[in-house]
Amino acid sequence: MIFNSYASLSKNEKLTPYTFESEEPGPMDCRIKVTTCGICHSDLHMIENNWRISKYPLVPGHEVVGRIVEVGKMVHHLKVGDRVGVGWQSEACMECPDCLRGDENLCSENKATIVGRHGGFADHIQVDSRFAFKIPDAIDSIHASPLLCAGITVYSALVSAGMGSGGRVGVIGVGGLGHLAIQFASKLGNRVTAFTTSPDKAEFAVNLGAHDVVLNPTSKDQLREKCNIILNTTHNDLDWSYFLNQLDSDGTLSFVGVPASPLKIHVGQLLAKRKKITASPIGGRFIMNEMLRISAEHEIFPVVEEFSKDEINLAIEKVKNNSIRYRAVVDFRK
Amino acid sequence: MIFNSYASLSKNEKLTPYTFESEEPGPMDCRIKVTTCGICHSDLHMIENNWRISKYPLVPGHEVVGRIVEVGKMVHHLKVGDRVGVGWQSEACMECPDCLRGDENLCSENKATIVGRHGGFADHIQVDSRFAFKIPDAIDSIHASPLLCAGITVYSALVSAGMGSGGRVGVIGVGGLGHLAIQFASKLGNRVTAFTTSPDKAEFAVNLGAHDVVLNPTSKDQLREKCNIILNTTHNDLDWSYFLNQLDSDGTLSFVGVPASPLKIHVGQLLAKRKKITASPIGGRFIMNEMLRISAEHEIFPVVEEFSKDEINLAIEKVKNNSIRYRAVVDFRK
Repeated sequence: MIFNSYASLSKNEKLTPYTFESEEPGPMDCRIKVTTCGICHSDLHMIENNWRISKYPLVPGHEVVGRIVEVGKMVHHLKVGDRVGVGWQSEACMECPDCLRGDENLCSENKATIVGRHGGFADHIQVDSRFAFKIPDAIDSIHASPLLCAGITVYSALVSAGMGSGGRVGVIGVGGLGHLAIQFASKLGNRVTAFTTSPDKAEFAVNLGAHDVVLNPTSKDQLREKCNIILNTTHNDLDWSYFLNQLDSDGTLSFVGVPASPLKIHVGQLLAKRKKITASPIGGRFIMNEMLRISAEHEIFPVVEEFSKDEINLAIEKVKNNSIRYRAVVDFRK
Repeated sequence: MIFNSYASLSKNEKLTPYTFESEEPGPMDCRIKVTTCGICHSDLHMIENNWRISKYPLVPGHEVVGRIVEVGKMVHHLKVGDRVGVGWQSEACMECPDCLRGDENLCSENKATIVGRHGGFADHIQVDSRFAFKIPDAIDSIHASPLLCAGITVYSALVSAGMGSGGRVGVIGVGGLGHLAIQFASKLGNRVTAFTTSPDKAEFAVNLGAHDVVLNPTSKDQLREKCNIILNTTHNDLDWSYFLNQLDSDGTLSFVGVPASPLKIHVGQLLAKRKKITASPIGGRFIMNEMLRISAEHEIFPVVEEFSKDEINLAIEKVKNNSIRYRAVVDFRK
């Protein structure tokens, strides 16, 4: 079958229409007619080959929602017509201890949807059905798209860091990831402090459910109630000592954004209150389904800007300029 | 009552006999006739005023074992004649969330046995009875002493890092702390890898229960089975990237030894396998009692060099020179 996609034909090039012949679906595969696809900073990194793993023509797009049009012979949990989503990961070995534990995202053999294969900026995508997730009816496709990468990344990190209900959670950065992290933490019953450098985002954070906002935090801004978890969603080199000081006993500073510089942490900063530092990549299949169920039940939806497929390059440009509020989604029905 | 002690009369001075009048025991206090007291590097730091919190005359000693000779009116869990131990901590506020959770060691108001008060190098010591712990009969006093600081420090850190049974635990450094960590991890059913720079300690580590030893680890020494926990018991600036690479998914690098230099950790080193870095100080009262029970049940005893009270300065000198194998204990009965 011919897939009609949008691809960078070489490094850093604007997307142009690109057709390719898809293989027949294997026994575990499914073929999806794409409805919507979000744009993530990782798509830009791939277009620009920043991680030196890109192959061209490169079809970006890893926040894909669509309807199943064909399934392989061994696929039993999905059927034609089901509405499903695909995120950053679309393959794992399924046999290592990480996979057996439901942590397919930690699998050393994990493969990404847009690395060495074609992503969701297309009329169709074909993936291992085990990495296509049913979308609950309560979530429309436009909103489901960003949940599949931005959403799972922050939700899985919060859960890994021990988030329950009734705790205190800090979120650094109110962007594509942060605005979802605030909602997950707040709507699940935690008291949320947002840290941001932008006055308009401060107000927005409160609307999303943040109880407190610290604008341009300096060492004078000591929280009265320290956090159990602080999640960093930015890529900036911040004053990590400040944020460690805002953690309560046994608290965790977790990174889903990766700062350019190494953290410089003196062990003494962790010792007295037994604090932890960790980082978390996307999420496994179990937690993906849990995240989608919780998003539906608690009405946790991203705030999106919608684009038609003819506006893909405009959308990418806006993501690059950090001018999207708060996540860009391309609607392939338009 | 007059207490006959050994004190540094000023910074860095050798211990000399020093008598002082003890206050009457308060309602929650107990007075202990000292049998044995271990020597810890923290005693040296206090004698040398390295932490700028020392007051002189300074009576060191915070691995104290002895028998109760008097209890305050409100003490019900201890009686005259009980054999008890006192470790680094001898006070906490008992009302903050840390204390209420049994993490008195994390209490911001915690007070140390030898900071602003007189320690265990004496014929008697008086402390808040809530920080005097009954010693199980199966542990003799000589062996109990180092458990009260070295033992609780490593046991509590291993438990906080999630140690159960059947896991894989790495221990960096085979000294006063490390040789106890190896025993706790191994005798509770974990597979233990010891990391050391000393060939004679490598053999000793195996005798203690280590299953594997990595001598002078370099980047070539990749463990076939990665660890769930690696506990650093040294104060050296080591190649932390190497040790992070020896951790399994969700594994924790925990510090009880505090290196002089800050750790330089790139978030990417933690991200792919969701690794953690933490540090842990001594342990609370619940875990202290658990540690003593487990030491008795599993025959986890330190290897000690014994000294008479006349040899205190010799013992301190040997601790300073790192020539003790593996923990020095002064027997005040001799």
